[in-house]
Amino acid sequence: MAGKKIIITGVPGVGKTTVITQAMESLSEAGVPYQNINFGSFMFEVACAEGLAQDRDQMRRLDRTIQKRLQKLAAEKIAAIDGNVIIDTHASVKTPAGYLAGLPEWVLTALMPDTIVLVETDDDQILLRRLSDTSRVRDMEGAASIREHQQMNRSFAAAYAMLTGCTVAFVTNADHLLEHGVKALVTILK
Amino acid sequence: MAGKKIIITGVPGVGKTTVITQAMESLSEAGVPYQNINFGSFMFEVACAEGLAQDRDQMRRLDRTIQKRLQKLAAEKIAAIDGNVIIDTHASVKTPAGYLAGLPEWVLTALMPDTIVLVETDDDQILLRRLSDTSRVRDMEGAASIREHQQMNRSFAAAYAMLTGCTVAFVTNADHLLEHGVKALVTILK
Amino acid sequence: MAGKKIIITGVPGVGKTTVITQAMESLSEAGVPYQNINFGSFMFEVACAEGLAQDRDQMRRLDRTIQKRLQKLAAEKIAAIDGNVIIDTHASVKTPAGYLAGLPEWVLTALMPDTIVLVETDDDQILLRRLSDTSRVRDMEGAASIREHQQMNRSFAAAYAMLTGCTVAFVTNADHLLEHGVKALVTILK
Repeated sequence: MAGKKIIITGVPGVGKTTVITQAMESLSEAGVPYQNINFGSFMFEVACAEGLAQDRDQMRRLDRTIQKRLQKLAAEKIAAIDGNVIIDTHASVKTPAGYLAGLPEWVLTALMPDTIVLVETDDDQILLRRLSDTSRVRDMEGAASIREHQQMNRSFAAAYAMLTGCTVAFVTNADHLLEHGVKALVTILK
Repeated sequence: MAGKKIIITGVPGVGKTTVITQAMESLSEAGVPYQNINFGSFMFEVACAEGLAQDRDQMRRLDRTIQKRLQKLAAEKIAAIDGNVIIDTHASVKTPAGYLAGLPEWVLTALMPDTIVLVETDDDQILLRRLSDTSRVRDMEGAASIREHQQMNRSFAAAYAMLTGCTVAFVTNADHLLEHGVKALVTILK
Repeated sequence: MAGKKIIITGVPGVGKTTVITQAMESLSEAGVPYQNINFGSFMFEVACAEGLAQDRDQMRRLDRTIQKRLQKLAAEKIAAIDGNVIIDTHASVKTPAGYLAGLPEWVLTALMPDTIVLVETDDDQILLRRLSDTSRVRDMEGAASIREHQQMNRSFAAAYAMLTGCTVAFVTNADHLLEHGVKALVTILK
């Protein structure tokens, strides 16, 4: 379908939502509107519409095969949207069994994104942001663990780009330099 | 088939076998039995059963197309096993022509593992373990080369996870802390 | 087809062409002839033959779907060549929208290379080579940016190797040690 499909990712606490919101405002003013879709929420809506789940907990307990079908279906629906779309998701998710690809093969081939953006910053900045954010309960992890997560996300992104031909862009959201991150994202999305 | 399929990898000298053996004992006591399959040995048995090879040397000299068919067949047979299986193999193997993927696309799609575990530790610890292990003849390489190998294995693992949706877990087998590594592996395998 | 298909890559300024040229001379003398194909130029010839483009600018402006078909067609033609071939290309290309995979899935599966070689060296050496090369106009970037590019190329290479089963080899082209790089490449190509 016409319009760009841009995946935007970032580890928890990097400030991804803030960067996206401000970039969308700037793009809207510049006459390049984007709609923002949270992949997890969108998948949940699809699950509800298909009668597969009534709440998030149910969705997490779905059989692996059904989960995959649901992910693929959600990706197909997003790919079919006419217009520019930001897909807000994770390059990888930390689980008790290890890193889980946010964009496995069956999602990528259905979505065929133009670009995957990794919003990043120094691991110690992310650590401090997490510590000072009392609004969310997050599993605590040290700076080394955050660095590992960000490095793995780059490897995941390279694999995603090999499969789809999308570009991989890094946007830095450093302390006191939010406007630089927003500007970098706007440049990519234009 | 029912049961988890867990791939466990690690560079030579990291102590992968020791960690696997102790984790399996602990899991057996906890009522979560696993069988351990060495992928190379299993492939050799398949080759013998198919009349393709009588010894390991013959197997290495097989035509590339036949090697691939053999790898795929072995992976399919493991995937069909009913019960929990550890697949002991390599994320990548150092050859004179460079790093070779231990789990190429045709193996992964046949196997569809739940998790790939990378047993790791500091490169200098691995170097010293190799130097003090007089029971095996190994190509010598320095700590920088071991570090490179471990880093490449992480990139390979990300690509494997993209294709299959398996998780990627790191288990550290540090000097004097074997029990921590075993415990971490047990947590993943439970 | 008979003969090795070796992909050789390296970031701008690493001296890839010099290493390839000297390695080919040495291999020719040793009775192992290779032909060298620049992937971009080869694709342009295919585009001209297909009546899709008359100049490079036209080719860059082609529709994404046609570009993909063209890349795949070029890869198929190279795979069909009888004899040893070096394919000179990039593991990834820096674009305004981020890193673009030089070898996306449809190129790799058509080409099925034996090996991908990454010609590398320290990022500061590359920076100085770029600064002193007045014959080409290049976008300026710092050493940190070059290091990032080289690291991403390793992740891309791992994904390429997962899909095709090719090996990934690193050849260092360090200052004053060109002959070592050439020798390393010759060893891989023999």
